[in-house]
Amino acid sequence: MDAAALRAQFPVLREKAYLNAGTCGPLPEVAARDAGESARVATEQGRAMPRWERYLELRPKIRAAYAQRLRALPEDVALTSSTSDGVARVVAGLNLGAGDEIVTADTEHPALYGPLITARARGATIRAVPLADIRDAVTANTKLVACSHVDWTTGATAPNLGDVEAPVLLDGAQGVGAVDVNVAALGCDFYAGSGQKWLCGPEGTGMLWVSPLWRDRLEPVGPGYLNLAEPNRGLDTEPWPDARAYDAPGIPLEAWIAAFGAHEVLAQFGWPQVHERATALAAQLADELRERGRTVAPRGATTLVTWEMPDSDELPGRLAEQGVAIRSLPGTPYVRASVGAWNDESDLERLLAAI
Amino acid sequence: MDAAALRAQFPVLREKAYLNAGTCGPLPEVAARDAGESARVATEQGRAMPRWERYLELRPKIRAAYAQRLRALPEDVALTSSTSDGVARVVAGLNLGAGDEIVTADTEHPALYGPLITARARGATIRAVPLADIRDAVTANTKLVACSHVDWTTGATAPNLGDVEAPVLLDGAQGVGAVDVNVAALGCDFYAGSGQKWLCGPEGTGMLWVSPLWRDRLEPVGPGYLNLAEPNRGLDTEPWPDARAYDAPGIPLEAWIAAFGAHEVLAQFGWPQVHERATALAAQLADELRERGRTVAPRGATTLVTWEMPDSDELPGRLAEQGVAIRSLPGTPYVRASVGAWNDESDLERLLAAI
Repeated sequence: MDAAALRAQFPVLREKAYLNAGTCGPLPEVAARDAGESARVATEQGRAMPRWERYLELRPKIRAAYAQRLRALPEDVALTSSTSDGVARVVAGLNLGAGDEIVTADTEHPALYGPLITARARGATIRAVPLADIRDAVTANTKLVACSHVDWTTGATAPNLGDVEAPVLLDGAQGVGAVDVNVAALGCDFYAGSGQKWLCGPEGTGMLWVSPLWRDRLEPVGPGYLNLAEPNRGLDTEPWPDARAYDAPGIPLEAWIAAFGAHEVLAQFGWPQVHERATALAAQLADELRERGRTVAPRGATTLVTWEMPDSDELPGRLAEQGVAIRSLPGTPYVRASVGAWNDESDLERLLAAI
Repeated sequence: MDAAALRAQFPVLREKAYLNAGTCGPLPEVAARDAGESARVATEQGRAMPRWERYLELRPKIRAAYAQRLRALPEDVALTSSTSDGVARVVAGLNLGAGDEIVTADTEHPALYGPLITARARGATIRAVPLADIRDAVTANTKLVACSHVDWTTGATAPNLGDVEAPVLLDGAQGVGAVDVNVAALGCDFYAGSGQKWLCGPEGTGMLWVSPLWRDRLEPVGPGYLNLAEPNRGLDTEPWPDARAYDAPGIPLEAWIAAFGAHEVLAQFGWPQVHERATALAAQLADELRERGRTVAPRGATTLVTWEMPDSDELPGRLAEQGVAIRSLPGTPYVRASVGAWNDESDLERLLAAI
């Protein structure tokens, strides 16, 4: 893999040690350029028919690309605005309430907890346990297991949940694009992911895999024009029988242009290579932090590296002034670096020198 | 009002008689330029802290702008991705089901019917009547009245629904930005609108007004980070007590930059003037169509003009080749022109000459 050629696609890496893809990936120059050109054309030509046709052509392409990243079928993948959006569509669509138990991990992202809180307000109960213990927490009353594929606070991975009887929703915000994902092998029923993190697309893009076993049982939340099989049939229409029923409304053409462009930038270097390089660099960073006496949080073979710093809340701001981008994790003693295939050893060295 | 100066903000009007704002408004040059510049900066600087601060600064500004367009308070206005998104959040959040009756009009948009169909699948019943008769269709079992403020097929307006006992959701896709909207005077409980139509913003923007009387009763659909009052408090957090609980996830900074920029373009010419010019030009077009023997659909003092054409399905495509943008309405004998303050008599003349 020509790492320098990949790196050259991302202007931010010319100046910065950008290690924050877990928030937002570096945005390739081509993605912003092509989206901007499309918007400029829209100002000149208006936003009617040829634009709509392009939109309808592009959606199956990005759906197929996302499906490949999950080793899934395109018909089982919905196009969403974010991981949050996908998580919300699953939890809301299951209509959980009184008597239902939800099992989750005690380190989840607010975007996972938020929908669970709505279910709790309806009478559901929530059990939050360490991610590693999540299988043991499942009971006969569990109606949903909802947890990270890759823990956003540590980079640890969820145990395999394939033989859990309850439906399993994985928050894949730090999974898809970062590591090889095979939704069938993970043993989940739903997998929500982001377009703007490890796939380097724009904010406002994401995906939701829905197991075909759930097609008839997961209620679509307010299906709109794109979710309906025959939208012009008035009240005689129905949602698509496949995952298009869960597509989010209002995602503009430019978002998918940028998302697809960014995906193609990475794809040309080979996905196994992208994943291997990122996880190897992340492991290297973890080793070097330990060698320097830092306490690295227990992690998996992922792209996140989290370690304790006495000044964790202030450190990212100070490093930003030196051109090093990492983040803190509020309420914890940790800071987190996100390491992608676009990074190189110079980025790691700048980070290590700065702390 | 300097109509030529307003018109000059929209490149599409240099070449085209663009009369399709009911689908998407003309996009001002400044909106696309500023959003594109922001995306370019993101490729160079990354998408971390200063960007997030700008996002948090901009959201209250666009919320306040949208609130002004509805004569509402900002705290009662949610930022959504589209009218569809707002409609979906209301219908889903009311948890309608068996025994509940929904009253709607028989000419509504698929994006309004879709969420109602989900409620029907749960056991709710739907009564669809002509928009003009909607008050008479309400019964003691009616748990929701959901209809257009301005009918997208004709430009007719809903009757005042202020004394209806059931909650009222108005689909304002053809209302807000086109005509003066006062949510209190309209007698509604919820008003969903678009950013990309009569406010000339980008696709992926919109708003939802939620009456403060419904704050505690409309369930937020899967609240995410931005919907939570204290997102870093884990499972001890709650949604915001105001309409921020209904904000849509995943709408990027660039969308709000473009939406706010477009709003300011229009605002500088004065909203009463924008509304008056648009409705006057639309009335003029309706008169001229009638003078030419065309059958204009019954309409209100709005910005849509709909009339019968024997070749209604094919006409928009043929007109597009001549630089005139209107649309057909599938399943009806009608075509529809959308007339904004940015249009002028030359646009109307080109349309009239082309049919």
